[in-house]
Amino acid sequence: MKLHDLGESGLIRKIRERFKAAGVAQARQRAASIVVVPIGDDAAVFDVQPNHSIVFCSDLMAEGRHFIRDLHPPHSVSYKAIAANVSDVGAMGGTPLHFLISLAAPGDLDVSWIDGFLNGVARACQDFEITLLGGDSSSSDSIFVDVSMIGTVPSGKAIGRFGAKPGDLIYVTGQLGGSMLGLERFKSGLRDAAVERHVYPKPRHKVGTAVRDKVHAMIDISDGLSTDLLHILDESHVSARIYKDRIPAWPGAEDRHVLHGGEEYELILVGPQLPESVAGITLTQIGEIVDSSAGNQILLIEGTRESTLQPQGWQHFSNAG
Amino acid sequence: MKLHDLGESGLIRKIRERFKAAGVAQARQRAASIVVVPIGDDAAVFDVQPNHSIVFCSDLMAEGRHFIRDLHPPHSVSYKAIAANVSDVGAMGGTPLHFLISLAAPGDLDVSWIDGFLNGVARACQDFEITLLGGDSSSSDSIFVDVSMIGTVPSGKAIGRFGAKPGDLIYVTGQLGGSMLGLERFKSGLRDAAVERHVYPKPRHKVGTAVRDKVHAMIDISDGLSTDLLHILDESHVSARIYKDRIPAWPGAEDRHVLHGGEEYELILVGPQLPESVAGITLTQIGEIVDSSAGNQILLIEGTRESTLQPQGWQHFSNAG
Repeated sequence: MKLHDLGESGLIRKIRERFKAAGVAQARQRAASIVVVPIGDDAAVFDVQPNHSIVFCSDLMAEGRHFIRDLHPPHSVSYKAIAANVSDVGAMGGTPLHFLISLAAPGDLDVSWIDGFLNGVARACQDFEITLLGGDSSSSDSIFVDVSMIGTVPSGKAIGRFGAKPGDLIYVTGQLGGSMLGLERFKSGLRDAAVERHVYPKPRHKVGTAVRDKVHAMIDISDGLSTDLLHILDESHVSARIYKDRIPAWPGAEDRHVLHGGEEYELILVGPQLPESVAGITLTQIGEIVDSSAGNQILLIEGTRESTLQPQGWQHFSNAG
Repeated sequence: MKLHDLGESGLIRKIRERFKAAGVAQARQRAASIVVVPIGDDAAVFDVQPNHSIVFCSDLMAEGRHFIRDLHPPHSVSYKAIAANVSDVGAMGGTPLHFLISLAAPGDLDVSWIDGFLNGVARACQDFEITLLGGDSSSSDSIFVDVSMIGTVPSGKAIGRFGAKPGDLIYVTGQLGGSMLGLERFKSGLRDAAVERHVYPKPRHKVGTAVRDKVHAMIDISDGLSTDLLHILDESHVSARIYKDRIPAWPGAEDRHVLHGGEEYELILVGPQLPESVAGITLTQIGEIVDSSAGNQILLIEGTRESTLQPQGWQHFSNAG
């Protein structure tokens, strides 16, 4: 069956039936947020705990740019779009709560693709303890997914990109380079742990909430270590010195994967000394924040050599992108 | 200059410079919400007033479906996507506050299109007293816009589609049929008030907040009177009797425009008797809610004739859509 046979109202019915009751029950059970009006009205309505700020973000995935229809399974497309938002909420020190999905897709798309996509949504709801509260749909020539998410953070506890100070230590969670390596292996027909990481990323939001009382600045690695660390430096008006042999590399990952690979969804944490692991995830100190004398830049130390690390993360709209 | 010359970071810089300071100042001035972290971080962070619920929705616009690149000016594309969300928040009785925009566009799109698009965003921020807090961007083959919005409503005051009861009166705001008529005239090269209405819709969120203490059910007309009234009937398990000669028609609009035209962003209000105008907008009583004996349906009265009005609003993915 094709999507145009199901029709928009059929699609909406399918999604509501699957996520309405489950979502409300799950949200109520967690008691972090009471859903007043669930999926299926003009807008969703919910309450959050008092003395909490709202965290609000969105991430889109466009076919041919973020995923390849013949390569990426549909459950990975939805899962990754949701995980990217969970990661963003976590990078503010927030706890993800609710999300919306806007989906544009061709009418001749097979409904089995939609079913796979919804399986990915269901898995993400479970893995991240979040609730689907609505969205929008449209026909289109290619597939386009946009997820917007709401989380909460206790008042005054949000961590941005702007608080890094000279003398602060720079940590990363987990290992870097796996996602880009996994994509390359996936394209060559391989299936291994790196591919699994690319297809089902593991956002570190539980680390983010656990360290928010300690760190001064935080960002998730969605565009690559070189690009995302520079965002912290630019917002905080500082530079960084990082040591190449300290950066925890995914097994088999090369420098270009580790330093520039995107869609890692590991966190960069900047602040005082932190424990070796938080929420079961290893933290590795890769360098420190230094004064910004000649612009905000990343100084990369390799043995006795020091060079400036240029951001080489993904740039949309560029001739390469 | 083309979008690929500007690049993703250039685009983000352009948007942030334009909306960061203005947005925070505006939000602070209105004091309805304090923005803790504005546009430009992993996520935005803001506080809402105590004893208020959060209203959360999204609406997407796909090129070739919701707008035609050579016909619709870019400032209308952004304005309409934002207005659709303002309308949804209003249809819950909520006050719109903050929004995100996800934009996918081809790299060879002229930057003047982006500038026009951002002019529409700025106008919408002013008209609706709302703040742009972030979003996402990507390259793509065609233009795709998704707006997600946050509003608030005092606790317990949200109005859904589910509260209509037999004996309730059915009202609509304003006049119907203008947007679809305007699109047809726009396509034939005409420019008049109907075209203006299509290009710059006027959501009735201020009516929604003004009547939320009185009405039992509410929806905005985004897909057409026949489709959207049926949503209220389905959710409330009732039928409706409406009188064709009472329905306020846009001057020059035919039945198909008035009964089925989408993108009206007028409200359907269901409840007890209401004043003749609210927040400066005329309310017209077009019928009443009746018991649902044979399914939830709309009975259309024309003189002495009674027929069942079938929903003929826009359906995405259908062979026509």
